[in-house]
Amino acid sequence: MQAGKQISVTPLRGMPLFAPGMSVAGEVMAALLAEGDVVRSGDIVVVAQKIVSKSEGRLVRLADVAPGDVARALAAKTGREPEMAQLILDESIEILRATPAAIIARHRCGHVLANAGIDASNVEHGVLLWPLDPDASARAIRAEFAAKWGVSPAVVIADSLGRAWRIGTVGAAIGAAGLTLLDDQRGMGQDLFGRTLQATVIAVADGIAAAAVLAMGEGAEGTPAAIVRGCAQWVTDDDGPGAASGLRALAEDMFR
Amino acid sequence: MQAGKQISVTPLRGMPLFAPGMSVAGEVMAALLAEGDVVRSGDIVVVAQKIVSKSEGRLVRLADVAPGDVARALAAKTGREPEMAQLILDESIEILRATPAAIIARHRCGHVLANAGIDASNVEHGVLLWPLDPDASARAIRAEFAAKWGVSPAVVIADSLGRAWRIGTVGAAIGAAGLTLLDDQRGMGQDLFGRTLQATVIAVADGIAAAAVLAMGEGAEGTPAAIVRGCAQWVTDDDGPGAASGLRALAEDMFR
Repeated sequence: MQAGKQISVTPLRGMPLFAPGMSVAGEVMAALLAEGDVVRSGDIVVVAQKIVSKSEGRLVRLADVAPGDVARALAAKTGREPEMAQLILDESIEILRATPAAIIARHRCGHVLANAGIDASNVEHGVLLWPLDPDASARAIRAEFAAKWGVSPAVVIADSLGRAWRIGTVGAAIGAAGLTLLDDQRGMGQDLFGRTLQATVIAVADGIAAAAVLAMGEGAEGTPAAIVRGCAQWVTDDDGPGAASGLRALAEDMFR
Repeated sequence: MQAGKQISVTPLRGMPLFAPGMSVAGEVMAALLAEGDVVRSGDIVVVAQKIVSKSEGRLVRLADVAPGDVARALAAKTGREPEMAQLILDESIEILRATPAAIIARHRCGHVLANAGIDASNVEHGVLLWPLDPDASARAIRAEFAAKWGVSPAVVIADSLGRAWRIGTVGAAIGAAGLTLLDDQRGMGQDLFGRTLQATVIAVADGIAAAAVLAMGEGAEGTPAAIVRGCAQWVTDDDGPGAASGLRALAEDMFR
């Protein structure tokens, strides 16, 4: 970590509404070009999950979902549409808690979150599922920057997640490519008094996502992408293992 | 939320080592003045918990702690010094989990975290406890800015906290004054397609702290304060209820 460097987080104005097949990398680059700027290697491009999902055609109409018995029971218990309950089950590997207030699920990708990440806002005629594999999506977006413009920014796909014990959501990285996900400083150096640093693993990707989601905002005023600069020390040549590698196995969750 | 605004996070170089009685507000202002800058109303001043604790004399020598029987049992179970276990008990209202890997406690102030926030790094001859009341500390720092220089920045006291399910730490607000802690957009507006936004409560103070802690860094290279700009829409005239108001009661924790 180089301290003393300023970090800037710039939300991108003028991003279009996304439809299946549209290029996330292309629209990010176009939005920056419109402001006389350009994506560079060393930048971190943060994009909202919803535009990645839309570009990948992850919109589902509830009328097209056939709920089974387990979904009907979950729906009755939680006061949801059976079709929504079926989608949550389809997207999850484990339901951790189910009440009318929230269904907390472990998503197929490993993340623990409300409603398996299914977002019913800002979606005209259906609900939006997460990308099938957000880390693969991040790698694909990064590859497009490299192929079309010869630049290798880091790419982070962000969503707003709830937390245990704390009210409200913060941005978190659900997909990542080309970024040091965890900056592990355990035993990597000495502090001001010569002790070895203890148990310091910085969740870089989540911190970047938190900052970007604040700048991007929510809802009608929101912009679905941002550029984070001043963090080039964490941008890597390799794509790296992705955001899923920053999740604890449930059995190892010290907070459980 | 006004979208489209750039957020900048600037760590402050040249901060001194802190000792009891030193002024956090004074040293932040001095560090900015040294760079030809100044703290302004609308800024968010983020300071690391450790300098607030040091300025408040929250350093404890383990040799001065007399561990009781409960602490000795906790120490034996977790492989810690009995004196450290006693301090963790003294600082907590509930121990949620105790293993050699981590003692997860609900701090007196309500936050859930490892080792009750007691930091044994960067402390020459002892361990550092959290401020007695971090929200009160934030209000006092803010009041000093107002009294001495007539400016009213928001003040956030940040620490790096572990999370359930996710590896590594991110910055979180453990004390706050003059900041919209939670931006509650439930039913506050309509999204792009006219639906009411659902269940969107943005944890502003934690997002700010996450961004600032990334910029501040850890350990020998770390700087213990940062200025966040571009977020004036969340800076309030009143001090507000503080970071403790952003915590769920354990009984209401949907993720538990």
